[in-house]
Amino acid sequence: MMISRSMQEQLAGNSTIRLMFAEGKEMAKKVGADHVYDFSIGNPNVPAPKEVNEAIKAVVDEVDSVYLHGYMANEGYPETRKAVADDLNRRYGTDYDESNIIMTTGAAGGLNIVLKTLLDEGDEVITFKPYFLEYKKYASNYGASLVPVATDSRTFLPDMEALRAAINERTRAVIINTPHNPTGVIYGEDTLKALAAVLEEESKRIGRPIVLISDEPYRELCYDGMSQPWVASFYKDTIVCYSFSKSLSLPGERIGYCVVPDELCEHEDIFACMGIANRTLGMLNAPGIMQKAIERCLDIDISENVRIYDNNRKLLYGILKDAGFKAVYPSGAFYIWIRTPEGYTDAEFCDICKKHYVLVVPGASFEGPGNMRAAYCVSEKTIRDSKPAWEAIAKEVGLR
Amino acid sequence: MMISRSMQEQLAGNSTIRLMFAEGKEMAKKVGADHVYDFSIGNPNVPAPKEVNEAIKAVVDEVDSVYLHGYMANEGYPETRKAVADDLNRRYGTDYDESNIIMTTGAAGGLNIVLKTLLDEGDEVITFKPYFLEYKKYASNYGASLVPVATDSRTFLPDMEALRAAINERTRAVIINTPHNPTGVIYGEDTLKALAAVLEEESKRIGRPIVLISDEPYRELCYDGMSQPWVASFYKDTIVCYSFSKSLSLPGERIGYCVVPDELCEHEDIFACMGIANRTLGMLNAPGIMQKAIERCLDIDISENVRIYDNNRKLLYGILKDAGFKAVYPSGAFYIWIRTPEGYTDAEFCDICKKHYVLVVPGASFEGPGNMRAAYCVSEKTIRDSKPAWEAIAKEVGLR
Repeated sequence: MMISRSMQEQLAGNSTIRLMFAEGKEMAKKVGADHVYDFSIGNPNVPAPKEVNEAIKAVVDEVDSVYLHGYMANEGYPETRKAVADDLNRRYGTDYDESNIIMTTGAAGGLNIVLKTLLDEGDEVITFKPYFLEYKKYASNYGASLVPVATDSRTFLPDMEALRAAINERTRAVIINTPHNPTGVIYGEDTLKALAAVLEEESKRIGRPIVLISDEPYRELCYDGMSQPWVASFYKDTIVCYSFSKSLSLPGERIGYCVVPDELCEHEDIFACMGIANRTLGMLNAPGIMQKAIERCLDIDISENVRIYDNNRKLLYGILKDAGFKAVYPSGAFYIWIRTPEGYTDAEFCDICKKHYVLVVPGASFEGPGNMRAAYCVSEKTIRDSKPAWEAIAKEVGLR
Repeated sequence: MMISRSMQEQLAGNSTIRLMFAEGKEMAKKVGADHVYDFSIGNPNVPAPKEVNEAIKAVVDEVDSVYLHGYMANEGYPETRKAVADDLNRRYGTDYDESNIIMTTGAAGGLNIVLKTLLDEGDEVITFKPYFLEYKKYASNYGASLVPVATDSRTFLPDMEALRAAINERTRAVIINTPHNPTGVIYGEDTLKALAAVLEEESKRIGRPIVLISDEPYRELCYDGMSQPWVASFYKDTIVCYSFSKSLSLPGERIGYCVVPDELCEHEDIFACMGIANRTLGMLNAPGIMQKAIERCLDIDISENVRIYDNNRKLLYGILKDAGFKAVYPSGAFYIWIRTPEGYTDAEFCDICKKHYVLVVPGASFEGPGNMRAAYCVSEKTIRDSKPAWEAIAKEVGLR
């Protein structure tokens, strides 16, 4: 066997989703793409705001080619980082500058450079169930384990006692994701205060700071007048990972950033190491064009995109509820977390959905069995057209 | 200490180059940027061909936004990979298609996903001295060691007996880099045949294939009518890592690819794992815009760029030789490997160069003590203007 042990594991675990892709394609061939209701992928269906494309073309025309396309500092262009800092200061009343910002290949790149910086073999990283399963791979990239901790079964907010019980001398970091994939839950002020209190106490107890890593690609996708509080203002040892993938519909362009606040313990060394890891893991940095384009796009009004997702949210939630399904009413992101009907395993339910050409991701893919994730970043037509299929599924599993 | 042990090492090792950057800036403040002769960095000074910028703007205008900026397959856009395969087939008479190509964030991204796929804790990767020092970090990212092997002291071509002696049961791969950074040497047919013969024999002896990883960002930068033979045609268990960073002056845009030939042992699993590693290491993939732009730029004529570097090469080599320095006459890439004058350590010689506002990288940064690297991807003016400085340095060290 030529492949490393860690990749053998990842290859085995990858087959479920690869199978789903293949099945989706087969279905589309059989019944036509219009009759397949694919809620499986978090790929924004709303195009990037036109200002982004205009900015890309403008930087190509206006910025010196050697500067635009050349190597920049490991942390990214200083003026881009300054613009990001200013934007955060304006939005959240913070006081950051370019020395607090590192440009990254999206939040996935950001999480990897943070974990590479913090983790040694045998260390532990806590997150809350259900969770984006790649966190496990990110932690294992650096020889560490992911420790998934329970949440309240109704609200899906962190169970603070379970968190406390999971922390030990090997705990280096806690990853939260808010607004949350796959449940659509937002961690509000009360949750963040309670979380900070536990982390402060436990850091004291174990004798070193536990870093809170806030993964925030859905930060702007909040509904019903809610908004995401600035996580780093609740707990000083916080690193924020952000991506423009969802807010500006740019997941393929690999552009995001990390925030390393001055308040973070040993922040200068951590910042320097994250820059080095950016280089030595092979990203080097977020692409130059996208850094310079984003610099001009930070104050784009994305309320129309949010409105579209909000509309999809209400529409799909309504269809599911009317059909008799139980689901968390999502406050943010673009997912609905649907309870698997009683008497069925996730696999059985998933198969019934497929029979009706509905593709959803089983909860096991988020270590949240008993549930399924439906992504509503699809066209309104797909959602409307899926109604009879959801009704037929509900009938088949005895909900109506 | 919050930082992982592996990053503590990288942080300590990083300071030399960071110091040099800082010193360069200080010098420029003191005597003016025009009077500092900075040969330290391999950042192309020739702008990207205008066709690249035109292609970027065209794809933004012409390609559907959701497709262009959205998630694509882990391996990259199929049609981009097909275009890359066709281009290689045209140039090298190979028979690749999209199933052999993975788009990556440059060669650094490519090397990381290959090593992540192949390496377990305790494995060994061989390369030849001197070498691009990041290889060591790439290998250590996956718990493996880099084993640097001697080259001929005159030609800097691999010492095949030393290679044979270094191979053992833990050897998983050999990295070569041709045209070579920092020596400018090209591995020709004879070298590649001899290398293949040793690897075939030794793979048989240790009972599993040793993968040859060919790092080729300088592939098109060959002079004096020479060209780089296609490495994978000499040895079947080869993976090629390529970057457009140097050929198209795009190092900041993070665009390149890996070639995984059908002849490679277990190539399907290796290909799949490299795709997964692309995602789980956080790159996800090369940026979408650059993939689609490159698809349109594969047959750009870059002979004018090569002519400029060639001109720089002759000019700097001539100045060095006239001043009395000994150096390898480079056949490719854009570096000259200068022998440190007798009676001086690299550090002493480097300090004397700095006194004359000449910045070169000491050989220790490539595990090649007794030499210095000068990058000639700078303006012709910088090279011309540096002549008196080189003469003064030569005088000071007793060469004239």
